[in-house]
Amino acid sequence: MHQPLSLVNFVEPIMFHCSRFDRDITFRSQVGLVPVQSSSENNFLVTRKALGQAYDETVKTGRRVKAILMASPSNPLGVTYDKDYLQMILDFIHEKDLHLICDEIYAGTVYGPSKFVSIAEVSGSPLYSSRVHIVYGISKILGLPGYRVGLLYSWNQQVLAAARNLTRFSSVSTRTQRLLVALLSDVQFLRSYISENQRRLGERWRLVRHGLEEACIKFVECESGFFCWIYLGNLLNAQSSDEELQLWRTLLHEVGVNVTPGSACHCEELGWFRLCFAFVDDSTIGVALNRIQEFTASTQRAKQKAG
Amino acid sequence: MHQPLSLVNFVEPIMFHCSRFDRDITFRSQVGLVPVQSSSENNFLVTRKALGQAYDETVKTGRRVKAILMASPSNPLGVTYDKDYLQMILDFIHEKDLHLICDEIYAGTVYGPSKFVSIAEVSGSPLYSSRVHIVYGISKILGLPGYRVGLLYSWNQQVLAAARNLTRFSSVSTRTQRLLVALLSDVQFLRSYISENQRRLGERWRLVRHGLEEACIKFVECESGFFCWIYLGNLLNAQSSDEELQLWRTLLHEVGVNVTPGSACHCEELGWFRLCFAFVDDSTIGVALNRIQEFTASTQRAKQKAG
Repeated sequence: MHQPLSLVNFVEPIMFHCSRFDRDITFRSQVGLVPVQSSSENNFLVTRKALGQAYDETVKTGRRVKAILMASPSNPLGVTYDKDYLQMILDFIHEKDLHLICDEIYAGTVYGPSKFVSIAEVSGSPLYSSRVHIVYGISKILGLPGYRVGLLYSWNQQVLAAARNLTRFSSVSTRTQRLLVALLSDVQFLRSYISENQRRLGERWRLVRHGLEEACIKFVECESGFFCWIYLGNLLNAQSSDEELQLWRTLLHEVGVNVTPGSACHCEELGWFRLCFAFVDDSTIGVALNRIQEFTASTQRAKQKAG
Repeated sequence: MHQPLSLVNFVEPIMFHCSRFDRDITFRSQVGLVPVQSSSENNFLVTRKALGQAYDETVKTGRRVKAILMASPSNPLGVTYDKDYLQMILDFIHEKDLHLICDEIYAGTVYGPSKFVSIAEVSGSPLYSSRVHIVYGISKILGLPGYRVGLLYSWNQQVLAAARNLTRFSSVSTRTQRLLVALLSDVQFLRSYISENQRRLGERWRLVRHGLEEACIKFVECESGFFCWIYLGNLLNAQSSDEELQLWRTLLHEVGVNVTPGSACHCEELGWFRLCFAFVDDSTIGVALNRIQEFTASTQRAKQKAG
């Protein structure tokens, strides 16, 4: 099924940070998204306390919270979640009578050392079965974003009935279906493609991490996805989200590196950016890291001179 | 653009009869559709008077009418509309300050004797230019319903901006786009395909018309599309829409012919059905017409016996 996220127009979810959720959900439906805050102190892991605070503050304004929306593995952090963490989320939705929409589109991109744990592995109990909905797609795991194919896994008959009706408006072209049948039937190819893809992503991350360390750029250790979460806060001229956007513009137009500003992911802590490293070759990554390193050095020289 | 009809969720349109409009529009959006009545007296052509009545009655109930939605060529009639008729519609939308959504998906299927006249040929005046929106697709003209590709033509910048945003949720697979580029670039093939298709549709309609005349079945003379509008009212056991649905069931399960009951197209006059004749071969059409003819004869014998 295509674009399953449009299904959530029956919920008013709390949200983990992912820049695309705004566009995919709020721009079309009347659903509001409430970001749940996290901080660099614990590598931006959303805590039970932060969830409770976001919930309480939303309810206080008279709005009804209907679901939690999360990306697992995380986007933009590139981290994976273990069973205990997922169980904490499930406990929370049970306690507050919520649904959980888990976007597992990066499931196939985990290069380790941890293994991916699907929410489906933890939510077996009838307590959660009709409240957990997994969305998925082939764009990340198979590198086929152009196919516009998504999937919804749910055990909730009402959600499935609604999804069946909505697919009429976003059905997959028969040509694409035919190709997909061939592709998905070739299990041997899929296994080798996915594992080779994961191996290369891991190798790339080690290259990027080495470059970040050389450039003395702080980052969150990641193990999945096409990106990492890096700190460029020492390049900010002042502590404001306007300055963060200005830094993004400078990096884009003057330095020649495009990163995603944290504010686009509703990150309240200033100076964090998402660096995508999977769509270019090794030498381009080297050029990008050199440019950031040189820009950092020249900015610091300028600051020292001014000081 | 895919499924452009979902765009009309800003309107509360008046509707010409087409069974698909309900599903495409009302099931998803909050828009209500008001059928405009017509009768066999003038071959079901919707008149200015009928338009005005539907408009007045809707407004009287406190609802706001925002647009007229029509299929041109007509579905289910298979008739085409001339300039004078289209001008009458434009005059009406101008008078009542409405929009016009014209579904021209059957434009390429006109086998004559008339030529197809697009609403674009009549609505050149700035009076209408921002109020006329044409939806179109390749499923009928090229026989490619599985490609899920639709188009919207509009000169209204607000409608186009909304459409651009909504296409994100129903973009066309890149594989399909690539095939389409090749197909639509081959103008010579397209011309010969479309004209041969029209020639065959015309031939088929003459075969069907001959069969209908042989079976003494009344019909509306058509010149486009894949279907015709036929009268089987003499087979009804009583004058009610329940009986019309019962006749449809009998034709489907006992006679082995599937037609669309008029009630599905909001036709108030009982006993009219849409007969699709383009998806099967000549001999199957012969079998279907024979079955209807035999069923008509046996029904009449039974009625005479009972009388």
